[in-house]
Amino acid sequence: MQLHAKKRVEIIVEASCAPTILEMIEATGATGYTVLHEVSGKGHRGLRAESNLTDVFSNVQIIVIAAEAIAHEIVSRSQPLLQNYAGIVTMSNVDVVRDDHF
Amino acid sequence: MQLHAKKRVEIIVEASCAPTILEMIEATGATGYTVLHEVSGKGHRGLRAESNLTDVFSNVQIIVIAAEAIAHEIVSRSQPLLQNYAGIVTMSNVDVVRDDHF
Amino acid sequence: MQLHAKKRVEIIVEASCAPTILEMIEATGATGYTVLHEVSGKGHRGLRAESNLTDVFSNVQIIVIAAEAIAHEIVSRSQPLLQNYAGIVTMSNVDVVRDDHF
Repeated sequence: MQLHAKKRVEIIVEASCAPTILEMIEATGATGYTVLHEVSGKGHRGLRAESNLTDVFSNVQIIVIAAEAIAHEIVSRSQPLLQNYAGIVTMSNVDVVRDDHF
Repeated sequence: MQLHAKKRVEIIVEASCAPTILEMIEATGATGYTVLHEVSGKGHRGLRAESNLTDVFSNVQIIVIAAEAIAHEIVSRSQPLLQNYAGIVTMSNVDVVRDDHF
Repeated sequence: MQLHAKKRVEIIVEASCAPTILEMIEATGATGYTVLHEVSGKGHRGLRAESNLTDVFSNVQIIVIAAEAIAHEIVSRSQPLLQNYAGIVTMSNVDVVRDDHF
C-alpha cells in the first residue's frame, strides 16, 4: 500500500465565522472539507459554549486534507479572517492512500 | 514520562457506512475506536450535511489509535469498503503513554 | 508565513470526567481548550454510546494546542485522573502561525 504525504488543516472557530472560512477554503482549490458541530471551548476571547438558544456561542471544527501548497494557502488566508474572532488554526502531517483525491 | 509511537487513523464517512467500517476495525484487532457524530462536509460526491430528518446525509468521524501494523491494515481494508461512499482516510503519528492499551 | 511547532493533545474521555480534566488543563497554564461533544466509542471498559436519556455513557473529545512543556504536563497529569475512567490521551505535532497564542 503506497501512502502519500498531505497536510491536515484544523480550524476551530465560532460558527458565525464558518461560512466565510469555508468560502475561502473553496477558493483555494481544496477538494473538500469536513465540519464538526457541537464544539465548545475556552480561549483567548473568553468562554465559548454551545447553546440551545443561539448559535452565537457555538464553535465548529473544520478539517481540510490538502496538498502542502493549498494547505499553506488556507492557513495564510485564514489569519485576516480570524482577526475579530476566537479561532485556532493548526496544520499537521498525514498520510493518505488516494493521492488524486486531495 | 515515557511516550510510545502509535498511529492515529481518522476516517470521515457517511453515517450509513459506519457500521461496516467499525466491524472491519474490530476485525483487525484494534482495541477500540471513537466515533464523533454531527459531522457534515463537502467533498467528491457533493455536499453532505447533517439533517434532522434523516441520517442519510450525515457523516461521522471515526478515530482509531493503534500500533502501526494494525493501523496500516485498517487503512488498507477501508479502501474497498469506501468505493461507493464519500470517505476520507488519513493516518498520522501520535505519542501515547499507555503502550499496552493499543 | 512563519510557522511555529506546537503540540496537539487529544483526550477522549467520559463526559462525567471532563470537568476534572479541564480544571487540570487550566492549572497547567494552557491558554485554551476545545471540547467536542456527541462522541461515542468502544474501548477497554466496554461499549460507550451517547444517549438521549443520560450523560453517563457519553464521551467528549478535548483538544489542547500548547507549547511542548505544557503539553507534556497535561499528558502526565491526565494519567492518574483517568485511572478509573475509559480515556485515551494522545500527543502529536502541529504547526501554528500565532506563536504567542499557545
